[in-house]
Amino acid sequence: MSYNQKNKSITADLKTELFLTPMKIRIPESADPRVVIIGGGFGGLNLAKKLRHKPIQVVLIDKHNYHTFQPLLYQVATGGLEPDSIGTAYRNIFEKSSNIFFRMAETREIDPEHKKVYTSIGTIHYDFLVIATGAKTNFFGMEEVEQNAMAMKSLPQALDLRSLFVQNLEKAVNLEYGDEQESLMDIVVVGGGPTGVETAGALAELKRHVFPDEFGELDFKIMDIHLVEAGPRLLGTMSEKASEKTKKYLEELGVRVSVNTGLISYDGKVALFNNGLQIPTESLIWTAGVKGNPVYGIPPELMVKGNRIKVDEFLRVPGLDDVFAIGDVAAMHRMGQWEAQPMVAPAAIQHGQYLAETLLRIRKNKPIGMFRYVDKGSMATIGRNKAVVDLGRLRFQGVFAWFVWMFVHLMYLVGFRNRLVVFVNWAWNYFSYDKGLQLIIHPFMKTPKNKAPLAKESLA
Amino acid sequence: MSYNQKNKSITADLKTELFLTPMKIRIPESADPRVVIIGGGFGGLNLAKKLRHKPIQVVLIDKHNYHTFQPLLYQVATGGLEPDSIGTAYRNIFEKSSNIFFRMAETREIDPEHKKVYTSIGTIHYDFLVIATGAKTNFFGMEEVEQNAMAMKSLPQALDLRSLFVQNLEKAVNLEYGDEQESLMDIVVVGGGPTGVETAGALAELKRHVFPDEFGELDFKIMDIHLVEAGPRLLGTMSEKASEKTKKYLEELGVRVSVNTGLISYDGKVALFNNGLQIPTESLIWTAGVKGNPVYGIPPELMVKGNRIKVDEFLRVPGLDDVFAIGDVAAMHRMGQWEAQPMVAPAAIQHGQYLAETLLRIRKNKPIGMFRYVDKGSMATIGRNKAVVDLGRLRFQGVFAWFVWMFVHLMYLVGFRNRLVVFVNWAWNYFSYDKGLQLIIHPFMKTPKNKAPLAKESLA
Repeated sequence: MSYNQKNKSITADLKTELFLTPMKIRIPESADPRVVIIGGGFGGLNLAKKLRHKPIQVVLIDKHNYHTFQPLLYQVATGGLEPDSIGTAYRNIFEKSSNIFFRMAETREIDPEHKKVYTSIGTIHYDFLVIATGAKTNFFGMEEVEQNAMAMKSLPQALDLRSLFVQNLEKAVNLEYGDEQESLMDIVVVGGGPTGVETAGALAELKRHVFPDEFGELDFKIMDIHLVEAGPRLLGTMSEKASEKTKKYLEELGVRVSVNTGLISYDGKVALFNNGLQIPTESLIWTAGVKGNPVYGIPPELMVKGNRIKVDEFLRVPGLDDVFAIGDVAAMHRMGQWEAQPMVAPAAIQHGQYLAETLLRIRKNKPIGMFRYVDKGSMATIGRNKAVVDLGRLRFQGVFAWFVWMFVHLMYLVGFRNRLVVFVNWAWNYFSYDKGLQLIIHPFMKTPKNKAPLAKESLA
Repeated sequence: MSYNQKNKSITADLKTELFLTPMKIRIPESADPRVVIIGGGFGGLNLAKKLRHKPIQVVLIDKHNYHTFQPLLYQVATGGLEPDSIGTAYRNIFEKSSNIFFRMAETREIDPEHKKVYTSIGTIHYDFLVIATGAKTNFFGMEEVEQNAMAMKSLPQALDLRSLFVQNLEKAVNLEYGDEQESLMDIVVVGGGPTGVETAGALAELKRHVFPDEFGELDFKIMDIHLVEAGPRLLGTMSEKASEKTKKYLEELGVRVSVNTGLISYDGKVALFNNGLQIPTESLIWTAGVKGNPVYGIPPELMVKGNRIKVDEFLRVPGLDDVFAIGDVAAMHRMGQWEAQPMVAPAAIQHGQYLAETLLRIRKNKPIGMFRYVDKGSMATIGRNKAVVDLGRLRFQGVFAWFVWMFVHLMYLVGFRNRLVVFVNWAWNYFSYDKGLQLIIHPFMKTPKNKAPLAKESLA
């Protein structure tokens, strides 16, 4: 089903629903213009933060009541951090900010003509609208893979992964040595970007330092962690040097790295690749693609490939009055084609901060400047004392890079409490070699029902 | 349905199931006798810990893969601690203990005649069996209350409560001032034991220090926290002085305390009490009773009131060979009647430690002594700087009691990591007045389905 077909069917259902609950979202009237922000990821959150205590009324809408620090989701999945340490409740961030109004709601559709947003808790009028709905996992139409692979874009998904890893080992412990046991222990990570690299590295460390002590009855020599990348090298957006070192570090940790190897199918039992490689496994983590996660109600001619929304140099959606798009969901025209900004936190943060400045200038009838992206470099961690950093022409790897990686992530984390708790956990993990967060609080159950939340996520 | 009727019907179903999966739990054969422990609460866990590296093969069976530190569940429900800080994976506790085997499984039934236990992952033979399945919430047959009230005996239940509190406030924020809004904000805690007192106190502190900053649009003067006790005083098992002080502390915090007031009905909207009191509320927490949570397969004549299993002075189940029961599920004969030990952690811990010693003595053909309970005193915390402690004739309340309470709980917590993280969180909460863990990671949904896990819990 294409984006437009989906769009139409939802719209029809929606009319009925809204007729039944024609409620308004209850926000105090204000003399200040109202900015409605859909989505509180890095872009939306930083926009709202910059508008605190300013003469603009901000309404932030998100389907979760917390901001997720996505770069560390893999540490939740692999038992290094508690989920609460990388999530921050919006109301906690904006306490005492009297011009910021948070509403937990799913956005159904926008109506740019009447300047309205329809949500699960009612409709709301805006003066300015900012679409900051981010990206979601892209399975490129491979439905079987989507049904059977695990994704890692949200806290519930990361917790599902954490449960799955341990559930599979608990099953393996009760089996004789053999293929079935091995396929419960083997893990395949598809996608050699930062998330894939970091996940594979963390799993390799669990296999080396944690699991053998806890599952003494299992022989972890038979457990394989695979990292499979369709392109010619890992971390394709970083320097060649970073790619090389990353591959070397991962192989030192025992990860089996394959490049130029694309996934063709995965039925929940066997992963099949385009070079003939076959890996029987009960756990396949898909980190090999994302696409924009737009809202319904945007005219099709404003959408470009990868489900993204066209924006101009001011992050405005061309042709729609007072509508902006920022972060992973936006695509800018550059060198003859529409392309997303680098899909990293600093780009979204810069979007948010730029747009706050711009809205304040519009409010004061001042001229506005174009958005300029400043490359803050990129980095990835592979394991303890092992990371790679590219900062412009400065490129370094190893222990120092690892400390830089940790420092930068601590600084970007939202909220002092989270920084404190993450720091304590990292120190503990480092000195004890123990990542003990393996509680199966909500067991993962592989049923079609379990996939329902994924579908819902298309509505930010 | 009585215990026996249930027992029979389960047994019939079971025969079919076991015929289809006649699997054995795979545990290495050993020359040492095998002790199977069902349940890893305070009793089962401490028994297993004392048997580490001893000439006995221990198989610990639990439906969760982690031990729950129940005394602090209320802090998870009220956003003071992460769930992972009060749970510890059994495999983490027993890493490198080569004579301890953990299996995550639900126990279906025991067969004392053939010395077998039937579980969800297969059957297992024992030389000694220890039933340590603890207690579960007792609604005393009030099915409507059971359907609509929240309980707090497990981590998933505590997280459901945490979600519910915030979900209700998120709903209230979008309503006009009125009855519906008030009933979303008001919370009723039923049961004036330690759990009820501690929960009501923690909620009162949230209402005072946290919620008003985060939900600036709501008027928290209309929010009432009720604590309702059927008996004549709070903390009925502690001293009169402790009860008085507790009531005073709670009232200082703004809690509305009612004694001699028993719940008659709760339909999810209005709580009705036996003295005519009616409270409209969307959140009712039931902490007013527990009953034993025995396994199936115990002859009915060995069960006593409150669903408990008879034990003699050696914690043996009379008439069954080599079967013991410890902790909240056991009832001893004292002063002419069968009664449970005080339902507190120290009693279960003493049971576990005593039984470890006893089993080792049996192993060495040495004479065994009777179990003697040592009263370690009792305590409860109401809020910051407010706690009550009874230690024999020594009774004190206030700041010092509060520090004693914290120190004792930190010491009893399982695992150094958890102690460290809880300590950091408490220090942070104390100095910042901020209990920010209000993420709705898994939204609570009030459906009959949601109650299913409760039913399943009768199988340890």
